[in-house]
Amino acid sequence: MYESLKIPHEISKADYRAAEPGLRGALIDAQFDLLESGDFPVIVLVSGLDVLGRSAATKQLLSWMDPRHIRAYAAIRPSEEERDRPRMWRFWRALPRKGRIGIFLNGWYEGPATDYFLGRSDHAGFRKHIDEVSRFERTLAQEGALFVKFFFLLPEEQIFREMKKLKKSPSTAWKLSKEETEIDRQFAKRYEDALGTVEELIGATSTGHAPWIPIASADPRYRDMTVGNTLVDAIRGRLGKRPPAIPKTGASAVVRSGGPNVLSALDLTRSLERKDYRRRLRQEQGRLTALTIGKKFENRALVAVFEGNDAAGKGGAIRRVVQALDPRLTRVIPIAAPSDEEKAQHYLWRFWRHLPRRGHITIFDRSWYGRVLVERIEGFCSKSDWQRAYEEIRSFEAELADYGIIVVKFWLAIDKQEQLRRFKEREDIGYKRYKITDEDWRNRKKWDVYAQAVNDMVDRTSAQIAPWTLVEANNKYFARVKVLKTINDRLEAELKSKKR
Amino acid sequence: MYESLKIPHEISKADYRAAEPGLRGALIDAQFDLLESGDFPVIVLVSGLDVLGRSAATKQLLSWMDPRHIRAYAAIRPSEEERDRPRMWRFWRALPRKGRIGIFLNGWYEGPATDYFLGRSDHAGFRKHIDEVSRFERTLAQEGALFVKFFFLLPEEQIFREMKKLKKSPSTAWKLSKEETEIDRQFAKRYEDALGTVEELIGATSTGHAPWIPIASADPRYRDMTVGNTLVDAIRGRLGKRPPAIPKTGASAVVRSGGPNVLSALDLTRSLERKDYRRRLRQEQGRLTALTIGKKFENRALVAVFEGNDAAGKGGAIRRVVQALDPRLTRVIPIAAPSDEEKAQHYLWRFWRHLPRRGHITIFDRSWYGRVLVERIEGFCSKSDWQRAYEEIRSFEAELADYGIIVVKFWLAIDKQEQLRRFKEREDIGYKRYKITDEDWRNRKKWDVYAQAVNDMVDRTSAQIAPWTLVEANNKYFARVKVLKTINDRLEAELKSKKR
Repeated sequence: MYESLKIPHEISKADYRAAEPGLRGALIDAQFDLLESGDFPVIVLVSGLDVLGRSAATKQLLSWMDPRHIRAYAAIRPSEEERDRPRMWRFWRALPRKGRIGIFLNGWYEGPATDYFLGRSDHAGFRKHIDEVSRFERTLAQEGALFVKFFFLLPEEQIFREMKKLKKSPSTAWKLSKEETEIDRQFAKRYEDALGTVEELIGATSTGHAPWIPIASADPRYRDMTVGNTLVDAIRGRLGKRPPAIPKTGASAVVRSGGPNVLSALDLTRSLERKDYRRRLRQEQGRLTALTIGKKFENRALVAVFEGNDAAGKGGAIRRVVQALDPRLTRVIPIAAPSDEEKAQHYLWRFWRHLPRRGHITIFDRSWYGRVLVERIEGFCSKSDWQRAYEEIRSFEAELADYGIIVVKFWLAIDKQEQLRRFKEREDIGYKRYKITDEDWRNRKKWDVYAQAVNDMVDRTSAQIAPWTLVEANNKYFARVKVLKTINDRLEAELKSKKR
Repeated sequence: MYESLKIPHEISKADYRAAEPGLRGALIDAQFDLLESGDFPVIVLVSGLDVLGRSAATKQLLSWMDPRHIRAYAAIRPSEEERDRPRMWRFWRALPRKGRIGIFLNGWYEGPATDYFLGRSDHAGFRKHIDEVSRFERTLAQEGALFVKFFFLLPEEQIFREMKKLKKSPSTAWKLSKEETEIDRQFAKRYEDALGTVEELIGATSTGHAPWIPIASADPRYRDMTVGNTLVDAIRGRLGKRPPAIPKTGASAVVRSGGPNVLSALDLTRSLERKDYRRRLRQEQGRLTALTIGKKFENRALVAVFEGNDAAGKGGAIRRVVQALDPRLTRVIPIAAPSDEEKAQHYLWRFWRHLPRRGHITIFDRSWYGRVLVERIEGFCSKSDWQRAYEEIRSFEAELADYGIIVVKFWLAIDKQEQLRRFKEREDIGYKRYKITDEDWRNRKKWDVYAQAVNDMVDRTSAQIAPWTLVEANNKYFARVKVLKTINDRLEAELKSKKR
């Protein structure tokens, strides 16, 4: 791999001394221009088979730049809280804000390589993990993140020499975990294997928006100067420019228009008598309690998404669900305008941060679907933004499902007349919790545009692992029971079928 | 305890039915008025020896109110990330924002009661823990948090009846951890002991700003109505009013003025030659590396606070410290204006959130001392706010030290001429990182006021566990070496002396 790099790459001490102050100034200027612009985050990956080189180069970067606006992250052992969530959670959690730089030592590449090399995953699992990593980078890049991924290369004999040094040094030897020691042992025995794994990983993840930059790392001066110069060029090259357009993956960009509307097919006259409602509500709430306190649920989690027309009764339905749940395990997250910390991140970040731990439940009152509803309609994001969101959302939900999180999604539908009736009723009673705002009236005028957006959304994001349930909500009793029953049926099927 | 509560307190089914809709409306209105005001957080504690009653009442509250703006929190088993930080960290982390309600089942009272009852702490430890809890509530109340602390009381025989029920029910029995089973066993054997512990705890923590409200909980209808009504009254009583003044604890309110100034006593001519500097820098950086990679540091942590005059060289000093540290364990937190999530919390919250885990290092570039410096001087908080901050900060640092975190604090001092020279120099070179703003010039005009504030701060917050080091910084070389040496000496002494 990268044969040309086996040719010596060196910089003399004198040349290094002459060039270093200039590089340092350039780096720190780039860092402050980036900070001031607040335009995009910079994600630096430092990887390769050169263990000592990785951390030495990271230290050098930190030492050159202002350490207050850059952070190094090495997730050697995920914490318990991290293990209790889908595997990309800890990386989402560690992402730098716009305007800042995050350095990741191996980052999300450690997992797939190690798992496959140690035989903990088969080749299909390895490719799946690679896909996950690729989608992660793609979605961040598409929101503007700048990737600078370094891959350090050392001649074979030097790799082993350095490892020996590492193991002998009293200051580093104790830091090797059992797993690392095992990897190390295997690595020496199966060097060619390891190289093959790495080559496949690197090959599959070198993309236009996040290319790997191979660097001959045998000479520390050459390594650090090259890393520094590359980083300056990358930041400078992007500042003041729009992020490059990233080619879309086939189908996801195509949105059908017209055709039969999933909403118009609903029979909104469906209803339930008060007496039946009370009986069935009690019954379904009992089922939900039983399903979520059992041992089987301990290793799973539930994410319930509520979307719907204004005044469709989301709040009331959520309350009936929450009543049946253990409050210690349940959180309801109302999604309104993002906080400034959220605005400084990828649009999915604020949903990742609220994912439930194993055994827990999170209910989203509005959700990431805002991207393809309100943001699409109000023009808060560009057309290509919301068009690719369908695919991003499918991937996001697939990651949750893969981890064992059960995802249910509801659209509560009422008709235009019923909405008007409820708006007027709410204005009359004047309860704060039901306040009708000007925005509600404005949204109402866009009824048909919303219907189209909902139709596209359901069409494009209903998957077996995370199906949409359209709820006829003109009658609240009917709607609430349907919501509860849907959750229960899904939980029952999931908890029965899969062994995790 | 609370003999009067042994008299039956009951509400008939008919009365309950008649009153419930009104209570629900009142609760939800209060909740929305609170949310709209965004004035203060409401902290509800649900405690007492009535295990089933605690969770039933919590569920009832959640069911009455809008679950989107209220959250229940039960910290049964602290997570690994929580165990790796001072014990109040997980409660700080769970605090509701202003305008929201948090319900804590036992909350911070679980720890002291259990530890003492099971003999894991002696009486002195118990009292210390109680003090910590009291200070926690006091500081939150002083920033405006509204406390509503319920203590449920059941007749003795009913306690045991309910526990039996709990253990028998297949849906709850498996949830008892080993520790809970042990507590339960001991509790039955030593009921009088347990009661004594609880009485002492309740007695010591019933304060004017966070009183315990005893509630006879044998009758669920009486219990829930009383809880609900009390909560409505508490929120209503506070809305639109300033939080009640809380009497200050003696000395902390008194700030000396005039007298000898700690800054004027400094010899700012102290300096170091470049050659000596390079040698000593290398030497001290080597020491710092060695001290922080050793096994002994793994159970400790380091918090380094940097304050100082504008242009005193904080950034440069921090960079020299960071160079010697493992970047994977180190974070530098620059403190500027708080984010909106931070503004919605107690002023110390944003520092708690960045505390290092065991074995890690956090460097604060500016810190919680902003309260008694810029906030005092610019009038961003009231006089009583900054006056009590001295005590709050001492308590905060004591909690860190108690946990094993080593706290070092630096004031980098330059004189007025040197500052002027550096301002001008910076304007000339025009590096972004050194930008001089109008604010810097404004601050300069308040030189003497700052000197007084610094003097008061050092006077009132220098403690053996977290001493201030004043650094003569007219000469940068001298300052950097002094900073490093101070950290090293402190680390050395701490890692030697204490067994943790």
